[in-house]
Amino acid sequence: MLTKLANTLVPIDPLLAKRWSSRAIDANKFISREQILSLLEAARWAPSCYADEPWRLLVCDKATNPEAWEKAFACLAESNQAWVKNAPLLILAVASPRFRHNGEKNRWAFYDVGGACENLCLQAASLGLTTHQMGGFDMAKAHAAFNIPEDLDCAVMIAVGYQTEAEILSEPYYERELAARTRQPIETNCFEGSWGNSFAK
Amino acid sequence: MLTKLANTLVPIDPLLAKRWSSRAIDANKFISREQILSLLEAARWAPSCYADEPWRLLVCDKATNPEAWEKAFACLAESNQAWVKNAPLLILAVASPRFRHNGEKNRWAFYDVGGACENLCLQAASLGLTTHQMGGFDMAKAHAAFNIPEDLDCAVMIAVGYQTEAEILSEPYYERELAARTRQPIETNCFEGSWGNSFAK
Repeated sequence: MLTKLANTLVPIDPLLAKRWSSRAIDANKFISREQILSLLEAARWAPSCYADEPWRLLVCDKATNPEAWEKAFACLAESNQAWVKNAPLLILAVASPRFRHNGEKNRWAFYDVGGACENLCLQAASLGLTTHQMGGFDMAKAHAAFNIPEDLDCAVMIAVGYQTEAEILSEPYYERELAARTRQPIETNCFEGSWGNSFAK
Repeated sequence: MLTKLANTLVPIDPLLAKRWSSRAIDANKFISREQILSLLEAARWAPSCYADEPWRLLVCDKATNPEAWEKAFACLAESNQAWVKNAPLLILAVASPRFRHNGEKNRWAFYDVGGACENLCLQAASLGLTTHQMGGFDMAKAHAAFNIPEDLDCAVMIAVGYQTEAEILSEPYYERELAARTRQPIETNCFEGSWGNSFAK
């Protein structure tokens, strides 16, 4: 099985190094109730602005609720459906854009949902599961399919499952699965002292 | 030293359980160059939509660049300054709101910056450091102080340091430091199958 550990200049925590977004998911291995709960707990304990916890997570588990899973799956772009069809678990992450305590706009709603979902994906990695977050889905369709209140904003759909051999994928996903993980060099996005002054390694 | 592990219904990865946002920071312990680099690396390897990596991280290290640190500190709300004064490292996280590849609006810019910063905070926890993300700062002032391009959006300032005894804090921070960490019950934000149908524990 591909591991694709992050190629870092200095060591980082093994959990952070091992999380990556595989697309090769085993269609025959389901996610237990306790595993799902641990994913939700990891998200739940993420930090948030004013402790607002602006995330809403809708679990669609193929094993226990295939109708909900089909509804979520039907919202995905065809390009994603090609490989997501094997994922036993889909989680729709939605953001509440206004603070609970005063109804004002929460600038950090998506920011905090992103942090919570990263926690969720890391917990999955800790359990030996793989996750793949997707923005490519029909959000209006998701709103309609699940009666999501109009004032909430869809963020991502997360596919969760057990990773399997890359050979199950067709192109272009097979090639992408095998490709090395890459990132911008540290100096592109990391500065010190003043803007544009690259962080010296 | 307070640990305040997340109080979860099922176990989660120890790294995720131990991260929390202390305000009691030791003013006499600085963060090494290698530690800072590992924080940046953890953020760098976060996932992002279209691999855009919309985060920009500006490091202001009191030990090596006190002028930059002072500039960042001066942007903070007074209420934050009261305890951030002891933090040896401030990192300003900024979001690039348009995709590199086509210049179109990136709906997930803040989402992805939030994920990257959660990685950064978790890496800090892995190193035995504490982090505290803040939205309470003057963003226009930060733009001006660091010549941040107008088309970028400030997200958060992150205080980083070694945690110390809560007793160094004055009120109301002392009380907050000792208070139990709380979250909404899992059923408030986590649903299954359909909207509003709480996830059954």
